[in-house]
Amino acid sequence: MPVGFGLLGAGRIGKVHARAISSNPSARLVAVADAVADAAAAIADQQGCSARTIDQIEADPAIDAVVICTPTDTHADLIERFAHAGKAIFCEKPIDLSIARVRECLKVVETHKATLMVGFNRRFDPHFLGVKQAIDAGAIGTVEMVNITSRDPAPPPADYIRRSGGIFRDMTIHDFDMARFLLGEEPVAVSAHAAALVDPQIGKLGDHDSVNVLLETPGGRQALISNSRRATYGYDQRIEVLGSKGMVAAENQRALSIEVANSDGYTRPPLLDFFMTRYTQAYAEEIAAFIAALAEKKPASPSGDDGLRALALAEAAVRSVAEGRKVQVAEILA
Amino acid sequence: MPVGFGLLGAGRIGKVHARAISSNPSARLVAVADAVADAAAAIADQQGCSARTIDQIEADPAIDAVVICTPTDTHADLIERFAHAGKAIFCEKPIDLSIARVRECLKVVETHKATLMVGFNRRFDPHFLGVKQAIDAGAIGTVEMVNITSRDPAPPPADYIRRSGGIFRDMTIHDFDMARFLLGEEPVAVSAHAAALVDPQIGKLGDHDSVNVLLETPGGRQALISNSRRATYGYDQRIEVLGSKGMVAAENQRALSIEVANSDGYTRPPLLDFFMTRYTQAYAEEIAAFIAALAEKKPASPSGDDGLRALALAEAAVRSVAEGRKVQVAEILA
Amino acid sequence: MPVGFGLLGAGRIGKVHARAISSNPSARLVAVADAVADAAAAIADQQGCSARTIDQIEADPAIDAVVICTPTDTHADLIERFAHAGKAIFCEKPIDLSIARVRECLKVVETHKATLMVGFNRRFDPHFLGVKQAIDAGAIGTVEMVNITSRDPAPPPADYIRRSGGIFRDMTIHDFDMARFLLGEEPVAVSAHAAALVDPQIGKLGDHDSVNVLLETPGGRQALISNSRRATYGYDQRIEVLGSKGMVAAENQRALSIEVANSDGYTRPPLLDFFMTRYTQAYAEEIAAFIAALAEKKPASPSGDDGLRALALAEAAVRSVAEGRKVQVAEILA
Amino acid sequence: MPVGFGLLGAGRIGKVHARAISSNPSARLVAVADAVADAAAAIADQQGCSARTIDQIEADPAIDAVVICTPTDTHADLIERFAHAGKAIFCEKPIDLSIARVRECLKVVETHKATLMVGFNRRFDPHFLGVKQAIDAGAIGTVEMVNITSRDPAPPPADYIRRSGGIFRDMTIHDFDMARFLLGEEPVAVSAHAAALVDPQIGKLGDHDSVNVLLETPGGRQALISNSRRATYGYDQRIEVLGSKGMVAAENQRALSIEVANSDGYTRPPLLDFFMTRYTQAYAEEIAAFIAALAEKKPASPSGDDGLRALALAEAAVRSVAEGRKVQVAEILA
Repeated sequence: MPVGFGLLGAGRIGKVHARAISSNPSARLVAVADAVADAAAAIADQQGCSARTIDQIEADPAIDAVVICTPTDTHADLIERFAHAGKAIFCEKPIDLSIARVRECLKVVETHKATLMVGFNRRFDPHFLGVKQAIDAGAIGTVEMVNITSRDPAPPPADYIRRSGGIFRDMTIHDFDMARFLLGEEPVAVSAHAAALVDPQIGKLGDHDSVNVLLETPGGRQALISNSRRATYGYDQRIEVLGSKGMVAAENQRALSIEVANSDGYTRPPLLDFFMTRYTQAYAEEIAAFIAALAEKKPASPSGDDGLRALALAEAAVRSVAEGRKVQVAEILA
Repeated sequence: MPVGFGLLGAGRIGKVHARAISSNPSARLVAVADAVADAAAAIADQQGCSARTIDQIEADPAIDAVVICTPTDTHADLIERFAHAGKAIFCEKPIDLSIARVRECLKVVETHKATLMVGFNRRFDPHFLGVKQAIDAGAIGTVEMVNITSRDPAPPPADYIRRSGGIFRDMTIHDFDMARFLLGEEPVAVSAHAAALVDPQIGKLGDHDSVNVLLETPGGRQALISNSRRATYGYDQRIEVLGSKGMVAAENQRALSIEVANSDGYTRPPLLDFFMTRYTQAYAEEIAAFIAALAEKKPASPSGDDGLRALALAEAAVRSVAEGRKVQVAEILA
Repeated sequence: MPVGFGLLGAGRIGKVHARAISSNPSARLVAVADAVADAAAAIADQQGCSARTIDQIEADPAIDAVVICTPTDTHADLIERFAHAGKAIFCEKPIDLSIARVRECLKVVETHKATLMVGFNRRFDPHFLGVKQAIDAGAIGTVEMVNITSRDPAPPPADYIRRSGGIFRDMTIHDFDMARFLLGEEPVAVSAHAAALVDPQIGKLGDHDSVNVLLETPGGRQALISNSRRATYGYDQRIEVLGSKGMVAAENQRALSIEVANSDGYTRPPLLDFFMTRYTQAYAEEIAAFIAALAEKKPASPSGDDGLRALALAEAAVRSVAEGRKVQVAEILA
Repeated sequence: MPVGFGLLGAGRIGKVHARAISSNPSARLVAVADAVADAAAAIADQQGCSARTIDQIEADPAIDAVVICTPTDTHADLIERFAHAGKAIFCEKPIDLSIARVRECLKVVETHKATLMVGFNRRFDPHFLGVKQAIDAGAIGTVEMVNITSRDPAPPPADYIRRSGGIFRDMTIHDFDMARFLLGEEPVAVSAHAAALVDPQIGKLGDHDSVNVLLETPGGRQALISNSRRATYGYDQRIEVLGSKGMVAAENQRALSIEVANSDGYTRPPLLDFFMTRYTQAYAEEIAAFIAALAEKKPASPSGDDGLRALALAEAAVRSVAEGRKVQVAEILA
């Protein structure tokens, strides 16, 4: 019998998940809830499910799992509530912007032995997953260095920046998770440099838009993350991993694989410039993995602990910039 | 009101079209017919439409258009029948393997002023379409040469070869259409070389598996098509067009954009190796274009005449190989 | 003891060969001759050899070998003269524009058992040679198809066209030789299409600037050559060879391996745009191979017969265009 | 009149410079000195100059300039001596491994108003120079981030490591100079992570083989350098620079531009794997720039101060690793 789903949040990413659930033969989208009734109704209409309140979703025994796509500041509360209600939970990253709150929340999840998967969608991108699989297959020997370049096409509006928790918790957090995913050892120390070069307004808000972060593991493995809030040529998402026997790299994605050559040279089109087109397949695979974990009664990954650890790296980066030193992750998670 | 559709043929490509029609808000899949009842039922079930006979589809006033995915030798008859019935028709290529039969059929279409679109899906591949749009935008000036490399991953079974009409009518026909699409002038002469290098069995059946074809237009523009029934590295589909001001080219497609580097060198994965994964988007765009043409009451393209002309080029190539000379298309279409 | 060299012709390509000979420890440039005394003097000065007449070079027992870089219409006479004089001969392509004259000349060479190497420099380009070596190493199995794209940056002046013998004998001849080098079987039939699209003046002179040629061997192997006298993006020189087990290709060469990405896309610089910079290394390796053959008393390759066969293919292409049919090489060499 | 040159040191790199000087029409190689008489004699023989002692070179008024390619620990003494003697000086990097000694030496150079150029050859690599020129031409707007990946094919022997001054002073120093060259602002702070992952012996010697370094300028511009002493796929030398309007990148160099495709995928050969083949052209251009500066009586660049500043960044990186913090360059140069 298909897994019954409730969707919390009918925004942009909610729609993506709704489609993914509906088209998966092992799942059934039962209901959707949103503070904006029209948004919920639109999805309900399109996917043939009902629009309900969160209370109703919580109470419905036909709903085995929820997908949380509501605003960040509601995540922890909803996770606790649905853990308590005995539902499996998929929650968009982050669980919360506060380490303390995340730990509290994960304790509740643990108490109820609830299934919790956190939405680090990039782990499911076929190209990045291909990198991971090449590593696991021994193609490059022992991992030594992970280099991640991750640049947004353009900075978000000031209002978004204000609520974001800062670039490390909002943007770099994806790269922290990816670094953990690929390093094969847990990073224990962080050094970061940061500046506001793209938009002075971002600096005035106390945030950065151009940052570089170094991570290291107990065995000396290193990761290096380079972020900018602006790349005129598109959404620049590259990973390379150096190992004892070689290197594996994932290239950028374009909508068009064409090239024009003339007296000015050879020109290929810019990259895909929107995270939802760049990661279309990743979002679909992510929900499919959650459904498969539930259907096969296996643990779901990335876990709440993965969410916590990525956030701790972000916190360490914040402190590294503030104090001009290498920060131990143990200082954060102590 | 959405365009009502009947699907004739519930095989591999029928399923693809069924999905495309169902997910298009301007269309509605009303019914599907297939000689194999189970095949029709499966699609009917999945897409929520009914399984019917061809007669029933023909008689249903709620069905405005049909998509013909039945075996090749039924195409012309079905086109005539549904032209007569006043339905719009999308037919998989080819209309028929005989030039005479195609002409007859197109006369019936014309008499009934029926809308007929022929399934040259590659025109809708975003990369090839990107090439065409670059040309139309003036990026390379006046077109002078079109070079098409088109290689299948592996030869089809003997039984397929027997019914195929030969490589020029079965495989090269896509490239003939693409050459016409891109040349900007109608090709009038054809020279071809051919051999069976991949599979001697193909040669014994009187067919070839390795062919090269030259086309020329009245203005001296030239196209060059290179086909093989085998490419160990995947489904090799490349196009480049040289013009007075430059060149535009479409590259191959891979499932994974990763690269592994070690002491043996830098290795990227093989290409996509199946026409249905390679042209997934093309198939979807193709049906969308047909639906849009019907919804907007505009002519559908590629037309029946496009189907005829591509077949005439194939016929000319057959004759060129047989007689060791450049063949005028006018000899075929006279 | 180093091989003593006389250089006949002190033009552009003569200078290149002079440098190559001077810097080769197994060779010594003894003398240079040119109708233009200043040209000879300049090389003599720069390379520390003497400027002499052709007679003097012929008579000098210290000169073991000559390199002929004089105008085409003097090649056959000079080859015969120096074969008679017992010198080894390197001659720039072509031996002559007339098949009959080439055959006559080769008979003289044979009679005197003279060493004759013809300047098909591209065989020595490291990238094209790499293609050949990959084939010989079995990397692609049995060769089935050779695709050569060869485009000049811009058409030569009318005066050059007039003396060139036409595009097939002047430009395509390099590709005919390369096709023979890579096919692994001797081509026996030729089909060609040709037009003057780049420069109408070239058409008025009875020549073409845009041609495509198909070759085939007795075993059904095929080569396809695509030439244009214009490529705005540089000197386009590509080769790919398809075999039963895979494909090997040589890419174009750029002076700068950089790429600029911005909102217009990713742009690499145009190609090298001059044959002497594109083939710098090929010219050096070519003379080194000639010197090595002499020093080690081994046959020099490509031979006079290679020169004849490439010319015969050119002749066949001319006839194919004129008569609109596939021409057998045996018709030319009968 | 050509600039007269004395060459100090007839080792591997001395030979390269000897050839570059000899083939430059504005220079003349007068003499060469080396502790190993045979080494000096070999160059003298080959280039047609005389083998002499350093004293003789110092005393010869026909010698205007010296090129110092002797062991590192002799550099500062020789620079001072020839500054005193009124000769122009080109010195291989580094001037010395000690900041104090370099400053002392530069004071002597200044006192004598001597011309001193330091051998940061990579600034003259055509591809890296192309990056710089693209930046200067405004192609990417204001520079924001410089990412340098620089990996050796294999670690040097322990004996080399012992005398090297450590990876930051020996290997990364090239990247520090390149970062300064491209940033357009002077870096003022350094954070570094380091480990011995490739060869435990290197760790035992107190050195590292895998390091990452972050640099920042007063304006917030950032550079990121990633080094490893091992890359099985060749000598990995890449640079990319992100600016407000775009990005420019220099790709790696291969000896062969070929690609083999088969059922395992598409494979290109490994990179050039030796610094002298990778930077052949850079070495030639570097000496040409020095000669041109002397001939045109212009300042030579990179200067002694450039040598000092790169060394100071290395020193700061050493301290950053030791103390686990961001180090201000002013601490080093105070």
